[in-house]
Parts: sequence; structure tokens; C-alpha cells
Amino acid sequence: MQPQSMAKSTLVVGIAGGSGSGKTTVVRAIRDAIGEHVAVLEHDAYYCDQSHLSFEDRLQVNYDHPLAFDTDLYIEHVRELMEGKPVDRPVYSFEFYTRTKDTVRVEPGKVLVIEGILVLEDVRLRQLMDIKAYVDADPDVRFIRRLTRDVRERGRTLESVIDQYLNVVRPMHLQFVEPTKRYADIIIPEGGFNRVAIDLLIARLRAAIGSENGQPRA
Amino acid sequence: MQPQSMAKSTLVVGIAGGSGSGKTTVVRAIRDAIGEHVAVLEHDAYYCDQSHLSFEDRLQVNYDHPLAFDTDLYIEHVRELMEGKPVDRPVYSFEFYTRTKDTVRVEPGKVLVIEGILVLEDVRLRQLMDIKAYVDADPDVRFIRRLTRDVRERGRTLESVIDQYLNVVRPMHLQFVEPTKRYADIIIPEGGFNRVAIDLLIARLRAAIGSENGQPRA
Repeated sequence: MQPQSMAKSTLVVGIAGGSGSGKTTVVRAIRDAIGEHVAVLEHDAYYCDQSHLSFEDRLQVNYDHPLAFDTDLYIEHVRELMEGKPVDRPVYSFEFYTRTKDTVRVEPGKVLVIEGILVLEDVRLRQLMDIKAYVDADPDVRFIRRLTRDVRERGRTLESVIDQYLNVVRPMHLQFVEPTKRYADIIIPEGGFNRVAIDLLIARLRAAIGSENGQPRA
Repeated sequence: MQPQSMAKSTLVVGIAGGSGSGKTTVVRAIRDAIGEHVAVLEHDAYYCDQSHLSFEDRLQVNYDHPLAFDTDLYIEHVRELMEGKPVDRPVYSFEFYTRTKDTVRVEPGKVLVIEGILVLEDVRLRQLMDIKAYVDADPDVRFIRRLTRDVRERGRTLESVIDQYLNVVRPMHLQFVEPTKRYADIIIPEGGFNRVAIDLLIARLRAAIGSENGQPRA
């Protein structure tokens, strides 16, 4: 809920859901439909800087826990984009498990999509959102998508994927991700394959873009 | 899914969900927003005619079972409204547990809302829908709403409400209603109190109305 007095012209959409639920496909469809009017800020670009840790120590970190993210910086950037300012978002290396020296400029848009497994977990983020969506899929389907991606695209072994899934991804999902479904305004089953739900979201975003044109919403 | 060749200009929205989930409030919000462009057909007006049964026998009928509804007639009327023809829907007496001699004229609209606990249960109905929504609420909340309504508005005793709930409403919900959530394109938590989800639906319906004006949709 936005306080009534805080007129704002950025519609903030949170897209949460477990690993393999289809969040990315939903975001891609929004971007394709809304184009230049949308800014997207992925929470997983904001994994904590770990340059002070050895590579071995970085491998021990629980990357599915809320504390793995630099959510303070993330919120700062969300607020700046909401104020119409561009941000230089960090670039995280999934190869070296730490932040790189690079940044990527993100321009503000009339719609700001904030996406990640845990974006509904932090109350400060929830309070900034106009629409809270939770992309849902059955756990077996989510595991199969993750397995396929990690084996095919990241060259990982079946055993290591299963091991990480059962020991980290699954318990963290049950503890931190799944409970945030409770905060969702809409639940999108089947994620990116759900054209009907995506069309609902897009119609709402187009209505916001069309009706705003610099005018604050009520 | 509509076959591509079957150009149609009525957007059909199914609104399902358990007793007390808030379906009616969602439908009312759609009607308030879309006005004359929307036709609403409630499945529970199509409870079977039971004039051949004694009143005592009517009390024994399971009204939460799919077979309690005259779904063949319902589908016929849905199809007629989709073809732009008005229908005379039956009027059911919840006092005498049977169809009355009256009918109510329903005019076609660019949007047709078909609402009821079991509208997602029949595959023929699902195939006619462009948007399948399931209004969800926790079972304790649903029970409390039903209890309040039945005691306050229908003069029923606490004991009779609990008895019917545990022996009929709840098992039928678990067997027939809840499984249809699986078919939903979107799940709306908290039903009628969920303004954000209702605004998503309305934006999509307004977009359909605006873009149609007699043109068949792709």
C-alpha cells in the first residue's frame, strides 16, 4: 500500500516464486510487450560482494537464504528508479561467486519489475510494490527445469544438482520462498507458459502507462 | 483454447472457488467496472428442477455435487450468449429447493462472466473460457463467512451450519472444487478484498472491450 499522499508515477511489480517456477519467462514476456517503458531489476544481481572470502569459503555460502543478498542496496536502487533516476546495478559473477568491478546502467521506466525468489520476503520491498505476483509451479516440475538448466548449460553433474537441491534449495524454498505466496496479490500457475495470466498483467501495465503520462496516480 | 478459425467477440471469464471464497464480490466489482458490457450467468441459478421430488426428498439432495446442477442447460445458455443471443435463465428457489416458473432475461455482452463453485469442473465449460480464475481463501475464513451468512441472513442454527459443512460442503469441496484450482489461469487469494487482482482482471476486460467493437479477436 502506498500512502495516499505519496503521488508516484512508477508502477512497481514484484515477481517472486521458486527456482524453476518460470519467473524469468514472465519477465521476458512483460519486457517484450511493454518495451522501453519497463525497467527490470533482478534481485540476484545483488548477491553480496564476497571478495573478502576465499573461493572455497564462497562455495560454502547458502545462496538461497535472504542474507545472501545485499537487499539494502537493492532497495536503495529500487527507490532511485521510482524517483526517475537511473542506477548502476552491480554485476555478479556466478562463476567466481562474487560481485565484479562492472556495473550495468538501468534506466527508469513507467513500470519497474523487481524479480527474484525472495522479493516478497522483505517487508520494505513489499511496501514499495503496487502488484505482488507469485509465479507457482509444482516442485517436481521446478526441480526438472533446474536440473535440465544446470546439467545442460552449466555443465554440472546430476549428483551435484540433486545434492544441492535436497540440502539447500528445497529447505530454503520451504522456509523462505513458499511462505511469501501468502503476500501475493495474484498467483500465476505454470509461470511463463501461462499466456492468459501474462496477458492480464500486461493489460494492467499498459493501462497504467497509458493513463499516466507524467500524471500521478490516485 | 479457442480454435483459431472460430472468431468470436465475447470474452468468457470463468470465476470458480469454494463457498465463502469471495467469488460474488469479485463478480460485483467486475460488473461495477464494466457495466452494460458484461453479462453474468451464475451456475447456481441452474440447480436441477426438482418439482417431481417431495420436499423431504429435496432436503436430502447433495447440493455441492456436480450432478445437482443442470449443466447441459447452462452450457446451452452460455453458447447462446456467446453467439450474441439473449437467454431466459431459470430462477431457482432456495426456499423450496426447486426451479420456479419464473425466468430472468439475460442480455449478451462483450464480456460473459460464468460464476460458480464448480464452473471449472466441467471440461465443456472450461473449453469455452478465455480466462479461468479461481478465487481462493483459507478454509477457516470460508467457513466463518458461510456461518455468518447462514446464521444472520438465513436464520439457520449454528449446529445445522456446522453439520452441513462437515458432512457435505467440506468433503465435496475437497473432492470436486479444490482440484479445479489446477485448471486456473490465475489464482486470486482473498477474493473480493483483493483490489489489486480485481484491477488486473478489469484492465484485461477493458482492453478486450476497447479492442473489439465488433471485430473478431485473433
